[in-house]
Amino acid sequence: MPDARQFDLVHDRGLTRIWIGADALDRSRAELSDWVRGRRAFVISSAPVRELHGEWLERELSAASAVTALDVADGEAGKTLDTMGRLAREMVAAGGKRDSRLLTLGGGSVGDVGGFAAACFLRGIEYAHVPTTLLAQVDASIGGKTGVNLPEAKNSVGAFHQPRFVIADARTLSTLPRELIRQGLFEVVKAAILADSALFDLLEVRLRELLEPESESLGSVVEAAAAIKIAVVSADEREADRRRLLNLGHTLGHALETCAGHGALAHGDAVGHGMLFAVELALPRGLRDRDAQRIRALVGRLAPARLPSFDPDSLIRAMSRDKKARETGLSWVLPLRVGAAEVVDDLDPALIGELLASFLTGFVESR
Amino acid sequence: MPDARQFDLVHDRGLTRIWIGADALDRSRAELSDWVRGRRAFVISSAPVRELHGEWLERELSAASAVTALDVADGEAGKTLDTMGRLAREMVAAGGKRDSRLLTLGGGSVGDVGGFAAACFLRGIEYAHVPTTLLAQVDASIGGKTGVNLPEAKNSVGAFHQPRFVIADARTLSTLPRELIRQGLFEVVKAAILADSALFDLLEVRLRELLEPESESLGSVVEAAAAIKIAVVSADEREADRRRLLNLGHTLGHALETCAGHGALAHGDAVGHGMLFAVELALPRGLRDRDAQRIRALVGRLAPARLPSFDPDSLIRAMSRDKKARETGLSWVLPLRVGAAEVVDDLDPALIGELLASFLTGFVESR
Repeated sequence: MPDARQFDLVHDRGLTRIWIGADALDRSRAELSDWVRGRRAFVISSAPVRELHGEWLERELSAASAVTALDVADGEAGKTLDTMGRLAREMVAAGGKRDSRLLTLGGGSVGDVGGFAAACFLRGIEYAHVPTTLLAQVDASIGGKTGVNLPEAKNSVGAFHQPRFVIADARTLSTLPRELIRQGLFEVVKAAILADSALFDLLEVRLRELLEPESESLGSVVEAAAAIKIAVVSADEREADRRRLLNLGHTLGHALETCAGHGALAHGDAVGHGMLFAVELALPRGLRDRDAQRIRALVGRLAPARLPSFDPDSLIRAMSRDKKARETGLSWVLPLRVGAAEVVDDLDPALIGELLASFLTGFVESR
Repeated sequence: MPDARQFDLVHDRGLTRIWIGADALDRSRAELSDWVRGRRAFVISSAPVRELHGEWLERELSAASAVTALDVADGEAGKTLDTMGRLAREMVAAGGKRDSRLLTLGGGSVGDVGGFAAACFLRGIEYAHVPTTLLAQVDASIGGKTGVNLPEAKNSVGAFHQPRFVIADARTLSTLPRELIRQGLFEVVKAAILADSALFDLLEVRLRELLEPESESLGSVVEAAAAIKIAVVSADEREADRRRLLNLGHTLGHALETCAGHGALAHGDAVGHGMLFAVELALPRGLRDRDAQRIRALVGRLAPARLPSFDPDSLIRAMSRDKKARETGLSWVLPLRVGAAEVVDDLDPALIGELLASFLTGFVESR
C-alpha cells in the first residue's frame, strides 16, 4: 500500500489537515503531539473500537497533560442529545477547558456525536477525527458536519464544526468486519458516480477483491473517494449549492432509515437503494440506459439489504421533514452519466410518488 | 425619547442589523416582513412575556406562511439541553425547515436557549432576537452567544450563532418590573467602566431617575451601552482578545451564580459583586482611589443583593471550571480607571484567595 496522502481542506475558520492511507498516524505524529501538548485531551470512542485501537492512539497523546477516555454507545444508539449532554458533563467534571482537545476514535456515529460535543462544549473546542471505518474515512469524517438524531428525524440537531485534523489510517480498516467494508463501499460508489468515472471503472473491475479482508486495493479507493469529498467540501462548505451533490442517494436513503427505525437499516444499504431510485428518476430526464445499467449493476453487486415493506406516503412525509428539505420542496441529486450528477429541485411530486410506489414493489416482492 | 438607532454589526457570516430605541419595531417592519415572507416562523418566548408582547410581535409576522409559538420556562430554569431538544422536536413536528425563521421574544435566558435551538436545528437556521429586558437589550442579545447551562456550570454548552436581526424596542421596557431594570443597570455600569466615562458621569447623575418606571433617560443609556457592546464584538467576534473585556465582573459573578445554585442569585447582582471584587484586585495594580470610590459608590447605589455565606475555595473551583477559564489559569478584567480596563492572566492565586476571603467576609457580615 502506498504512503499516506496529505490534503489541506481550507474552510472559513482555517484549515483541516487530512492524512489518508497506510501510515497516516505516523505521518501525523509530530503535529498531533504539538496540538495536544500540555493540554487535556478527551478521546471519545465506543467500547469495541477502544478495545482495538484505543491504546495505540493514547500512546500518540503522551504529550497531553491528561488523557480522558469517554465512551458512547456504538452506532445510531449513541447519537442522541442525552449522550452529548453526558459527554459535556463528564468533560466539565474532568476539568475540560476552552483550550482542551477532543479526538473521536471510531465510525461515523462516534464522530458525529463526539464532534457535536466538541462544537458545543464551552461554545466550541478544537477536535480531530480518527475514523476507523470505511464509511467514516471516505465520508463522515470530512466536512465538519456533526450532530445527533431526534426520534423524529436523523441528524436534525447539530452544528458545522470543522476538525483540526482527520487521521484516516488504513491499518484500522484491516480489523473491520466485511459487512462494514460493504456498507462503506456504497459511499465510494456514490463518489464515483458523482465525479470520477475512472474510479467507477476501477470499482467495476476490483469490487470482488475490495470485499475481501485486507484488500490491497482498498487504500487507493479510499483516497480517491475521500479526495472527491474534500474537493466538493472545499468548494462549498455549507451546502448552499455544490455540496448538495454529496446527497446522491440520501434523499430517499435517510427516509428509509428513519421509517425503518434508526439503526434497523444500515446507512450504506439505505444509500444504495437511494441511488437505485435516483437512477429511476434520472432516466426520464435523459440518463442513458447504458449508464443506468452500469450503476444498477455495481450497486447491485454490493447487495443492498432487502427492504421491509414501506408505505410510500410515509417515506415522502419523512423526506419532507428531512433537514435537507426546504420549504420550497424536495431536492434530488440525479446522475447525468457515470461521473457527473445534478441537483434538481422541481420534480413533479406526483411522478415521484408513482415511481416510488413501483420502485418499492420491485424491491419488496421480486428480490 | 429619540427615534431608534440602527447599527450594523459585521461578523464572519455576514451582518446583524440592530435597531435600538423607542420605535425599533416600526423601523424594522419592512425588513422583518421580507425576511419571514412565505416561510414558517417560530416565536420562542415564555408565558408571561408572550402575554405582554406576543400579539404585538405576531402581527408583524403576518407575511409568514405560518407562525408557531413555543414557550420555555422563564429564567435560568428554561436554559437546559432538554428544553433545547424539546424545541427542536416541536420544530420538526411543525414542519420546520432549513429556511424556516426563528425569533426569540424575551429576556436573556429565552434568547440564549432559543438562539441555541436556532444554532443547532438542522445545523443552523436564521433567527432574530426581540429582547424585552434591559439586560437583554444592552448585552445578551448582541454578539451571537447562545447556550444552556449544565448542572455543573453555567452556559457550558452552546454555540456562536449570530442573529440576523436584533429588535430592541424601548416600549417593551415600560412594562418591566423595577427589579429587572435594576438588574440590567449593572451591565450598563459595566459598559461605562470599560469604555465610556461620559456614560459613567451620566449614570452618576441620573441613576435615581433611571430606576423609576418609564424613565425618560433609559433609552439613551440603553443605546450608549449597546453601542459599546457592538463596538467590542465587531472588533473581536470570538473573544480571542478584546471581547474578553466584556467579562468585567463575570469571573467571580458566574461563580457566585453557580455556587448559589442557578437562579438563586440574579445575574446583575452577581456581576455587581464581581465588579466590586475587580476593584479590590485592581487597587494593588494602580487603580486610583478616586476611581475605585466612584465605582464602588455607583455599584453600591444599585444595591447588589446580600450574598449568602460562600466558601472561597468552592468559588475558586467554580471559576476554574468556568468556560472562560483556560488551562493556563484564570483571566480577570480589571478597571484601569473609569472608562478603561485590561485583561490580566497572571494574578497570583494566593493573592486572589486572600482578597476573596476578606471580600466575602465584608459582604456577608458588615452589610
